[in-house]
Amino acid sequence: MSVTFADVEAAAARIAGHAVRTPLIESPALNERVGGRVLIKPETLQRVGAFKFRGAYNRLVQFTPDERAKGAVAFSSGNHAQGVALAGRLLGVPTLIVMPADAPAVKIEATRGYGAEIRLYDRFTEDRVAIAEAIRDERGMTVVPSFDDPHIIAGQGTAGLELVRQAEALGARLDCVVSPIGGGGLIGGVGLAVKALSPATAVVGVEPIDFDDALRSLQAGTAQTIDPHARSICDALLSPSPSELTLSVMRKTVADVALVTDAEVTEAMRYAFQTLKLVVEPGGAVGLAALLAGKVRYKGETTGLILSGGNVDPAMFAQVLAGEL
Amino acid sequence: MSVTFADVEAAAARIAGHAVRTPLIESPALNERVGGRVLIKPETLQRVGAFKFRGAYNRLVQFTPDERAKGAVAFSSGNHAQGVALAGRLLGVPTLIVMPADAPAVKIEATRGYGAEIRLYDRFTEDRVAIAEAIRDERGMTVVPSFDDPHIIAGQGTAGLELVRQAEALGARLDCVVSPIGGGGLIGGVGLAVKALSPATAVVGVEPIDFDDALRSLQAGTAQTIDPHARSICDALLSPSPSELTLSVMRKTVADVALVTDAEVTEAMRYAFQTLKLVVEPGGAVGLAALLAGKVRYKGETTGLILSGGNVDPAMFAQVLAGEL
Repeated sequence: MSVTFADVEAAAARIAGHAVRTPLIESPALNERVGGRVLIKPETLQRVGAFKFRGAYNRLVQFTPDERAKGAVAFSSGNHAQGVALAGRLLGVPTLIVMPADAPAVKIEATRGYGAEIRLYDRFTEDRVAIAEAIRDERGMTVVPSFDDPHIIAGQGTAGLELVRQAEALGARLDCVVSPIGGGGLIGGVGLAVKALSPATAVVGVEPIDFDDALRSLQAGTAQTIDPHARSICDALLSPSPSELTLSVMRKTVADVALVTDAEVTEAMRYAFQTLKLVVEPGGAVGLAALLAGKVRYKGETTGLILSGGNVDPAMFAQVLAGEL
Repeated sequence: MSVTFADVEAAAARIAGHAVRTPLIESPALNERVGGRVLIKPETLQRVGAFKFRGAYNRLVQFTPDERAKGAVAFSSGNHAQGVALAGRLLGVPTLIVMPADAPAVKIEATRGYGAEIRLYDRFTEDRVAIAEAIRDERGMTVVPSFDDPHIIAGQGTAGLELVRQAEALGARLDCVVSPIGGGGLIGGVGLAVKALSPATAVVGVEPIDFDDALRSLQAGTAQTIDPHARSICDALLSPSPSELTLSVMRKTVADVALVTDAEVTEAMRYAFQTLKLVVEPGGAVGLAALLAGKVRYKGETTGLILSGGNVDPAMFAQVLAGEL
């Protein structure tokens, strides 16, 4: 398996008119705060409230007629779930999503709202891959991985393609693009687009500090896994390890990885609320957290910042605003 | 006093590079919900988190050297306060803002943060106009009204100018533009721009139901005032009456006025949080509230919707999310 910039370009053509071309936004207050220009790519404004719709649509739209009829099965803590569910609804493909029982309620409800069948499982005692594969074997559904798939990676990369083109349209030269890392699908695709279109731009990933599997995998050269006892409020970024495919793409494209604490993440969410007026979920805010905490090296004068998602439970958001998280 | 579309165009040239050219954003979920296309102009993303910076900057940048040295005094519940304070800081003009003691804390703190001197007063027992005029007489400061001023109205109108141009760039024809009405400065300026550039587009204002002074003034032909005992959570829209100037502009430009309840407003704030991922303050959400409640006549196929501000106290926002407001 491999994935290239040509795949990202092809994905961009497939999702055009279906995914939202999210705007670039700029906050003079944030620029002043970090001492440079930050061009924000708010994938919070994407369909389903996260970039995941891009990859899911790009995958499902390429299903054969037989695959379309039998449907798609996916496992996801929530954003990929919603992306697959909505893409399925738009394309007439039945979907079944295997979700952790402790996923944010708002994500479970939204996924159901898009018409998907839901199968809840216990993240600590059950194996979601085994559950999905059993469903595949029983019902003939196609498994749609959340990141370990060239079409998924290429679809997510369209966010980076747009970011570079939109920055060009403003006459801006990106010194750096900052993106969250979960399993590596987003930063992998974004990295392919950025390095193809703007080779001098550094791609910097950000992980929750106890979910530094990408950083350690890049250092070791082989996929490393996280401690199964690790916890983080960044529910979207809890994948235990990159895949061989996402690791190989990250090795070619990622210049550096920053690590952020949950406290830095909630601080960033409050900043996004108060100053940017944007609702950002914990996993979507790690890049902003790293910038605000001064943890992004290669920053340069102009930074592209991906806010990857905004699906956060109201009760949790209220706790974050109150400083209780 | 009068104000024309030429004044709006001149204001646009003056604020270029200083105010944010906020993007147009579109949510397929909202489009589906209201059964048409909604092009959102999020002035929540404007400097100070509200459109008010536009008018304030347009006014202060035209101060004479003597006026600049002596400074500006304004009275405002919060957004105009912040706009004047920040414009003053950028232009080197000292500012003093007379604010109600019960204004949202976040607005008072932000205004102070921009370097303004603050004078708090009691909305129910003190006269803010008298206070501001006393300061003017004592210190030689220029009073900058929040809406009863051609330069302020022209500045706010730049939001409408941008909205029409951005819609054109998308190939969209606006059937209707929906804007909040407080004192009439925003909708007045927006109305001038919309009727000049797109005469077939209906301009629809929205007021809190017990602050229907614009609606009644338009019906009566002369300025009407609201019941002094009226209350609303829309702190940005509590001005008791339009001025002769804003009323004369609204008479030429406004096709209809919708009225919304506080419950409809908080419902819209929750919708903005959950689906649009935008932080919108009560007064900023009245247009969305009217759309969601089916109260906008003249809706047509394509609606321009101004979300005018996003400055809301975290504690209040948490209450709204919890359904306690």
